[in-house]
Amino acid sequence: MPVVLDKTELQDFLDEVFPQLVGEFVVEHVEEMYTEIRLPVAEKHLRPGGTVSGPTMFMLADVAVYAGVLSMIGKKALAVTTSCSLDFMRKPAAGKDLLAKCTLLKLGKMLAVGDVLIYSIGEDKPVARSTMTYSIPPK
Amino acid sequence: MPVVLDKTELQDFLDEVFPQLVGEFVVEHVEEMYTEIRLPVAEKHLRPGGTVSGPTMFMLADVAVYAGVLSMIGKKALAVTTSCSLDFMRKPAAGKDLLAKCTLLKLGKMLAVGDVLIYSIGEDKPVARSTMTYSIPPK
Amino acid sequence: MPVVLDKTELQDFLDEVFPQLVGEFVVEHVEEMYTEIRLPVAEKHLRPGGTVSGPTMFMLADVAVYAGVLSMIGKKALAVTTSCSLDFMRKPAAGKDLLAKCTLLKLGKMLAVGDVLIYSIGEDKPVARSTMTYSIPPK
Amino acid sequence: MPVVLDKTELQDFLDEVFPQLVGEFVVEHVEEMYTEIRLPVAEKHLRPGGTVSGPTMFMLADVAVYAGVLSMIGKKALAVTTSCSLDFMRKPAAGKDLLAKCTLLKLGKMLAVGDVLIYSIGEDKPVARSTMTYSIPPK
Repeated sequence: MPVVLDKTELQDFLDEVFPQLVGEFVVEHVEEMYTEIRLPVAEKHLRPGGTVSGPTMFMLADVAVYAGVLSMIGKKALAVTTSCSLDFMRKPAAGKDLLAKCTLLKLGKMLAVGDVLIYSIGEDKPVARSTMTYSIPPK
Repeated sequence: MPVVLDKTELQDFLDEVFPQLVGEFVVEHVEEMYTEIRLPVAEKHLRPGGTVSGPTMFMLADVAVYAGVLSMIGKKALAVTTSCSLDFMRKPAAGKDLLAKCTLLKLGKMLAVGDVLIYSIGEDKPVARSTMTYSIPPK
Repeated sequence: MPVVLDKTELQDFLDEVFPQLVGEFVVEHVEEMYTEIRLPVAEKHLRPGGTVSGPTMFMLADVAVYAGVLSMIGKKALAVTTSCSLDFMRKPAAGKDLLAKCTLLKLGKMLAVGDVLIYSIGEDKPVARSTMTYSIPPK
Repeated sequence: MPVVLDKTELQDFLDEVFPQLVGEFVVEHVEEMYTEIRLPVAEKHLRPGGTVSGPTMFMLADVAVYAGVLSMIGKKALAVTTSCSLDFMRKPAAGKDLLAKCTLLKLGKMLAVGDVLIYSIGEDKPVARSTMTYSIPPK
């Protein structure tokens, strides 16, 4: 099952659909059923104690699965998250960007499931993990 | 087990700890093991199709549990979310604020668990639900 | 939206579909979008330390949501769980049955979502909570 | 960080702690932060439609994480599951055993987090995934 949107097409589509998020998410890698998205961490993402905020982590995981699904099914802006689980495991390393690695575990006609591991770039232990279920709009 | 931070004290503390979020979250109600937080929905919270974004829902649920925990244990800015689950069930009603109703199911020495139902104000069916586990810093 | 299977019909159907579980689950109460199921706790459900095993809790929550869904849509043996989250919060009280209280939060054409709180009968704090999503087979 | 219980020691300990489950779970592989457990699927694990029951999947995932944690910290029967999420994605292949592959994402002093993918042996797409959080008893 081939990728239908490559790295550049995916980045362009995300920037078009989420104009308020331009520059927040960088599509680093796309292959069959697998996507990597980088978040350039900035002051606004931080919380007391210097950690990256939960909503930022959620958004990164969410965008990674959304990008993974779209890379396989094409431009369907209305794919929506129906459920998710997240575990926050470690404090991100200071001054490093976050990288979300998303593996699609299922890509059905109606539902897709993606697993995400989030790392501080260059570290080998994940700071968070997430599973997201997306509902895919009918053709 | 009495509430140790009332509505006004809780609002003041949230505004102090999250200065970038002032005006985003309104503490509507506080009682033993139960809190209500309102999100005045604005343009920036919306996504294609007019729905409220997932990260906004996550943040509202997260703040509701954080507020619920703090109302019972006092000002501990460093309580952190360790895990969560969310289910997105309905599209919020257009032009209505969101109200998160959080019930603390457990308040242990180290871990707290809060259940949240999110409603479009005035509607009787929830738009989303979430469970959040918080790790409480030692005294 | 009326209940289409009452307490007795629901018990009979569960016993018919899960013959190996007869006597394990007692339908205690059925009303619109709400069901209570009791598990008579026996030696085989226990684990080291005297707690009820996780799989037993999972099964009780799962049956409670399945029963809740069927009470509203009728006999559809092939409704299946697609995802769930569980939190284990307290050790059940020794020598007491468990009671699962299930509230259906959503009952759509394709997906149903049920929230479950599990109590040791007579206690006011829940031992566990769970959310289960069921996929409903097309008519 | 070396493994402290090898495959045989782990199998012996599981059989000792869960005498009612002897023969249900086979420790297939143990290495640092990674464990594989096989479930010989039998008639009693099946549900209407020929699928493996949810509680069986839960139990397999739970045992896989428990085994993974014990392989790293030694014999602590009282480590307990505090929360979990599961996604059921495909019907298992008929007549094939299930294999759970558990990766420990975190092994802290108090909490461990394990990710599990469950396969029908010989198939390349997972039938289910799960994340389990374990609370580790103090020394």
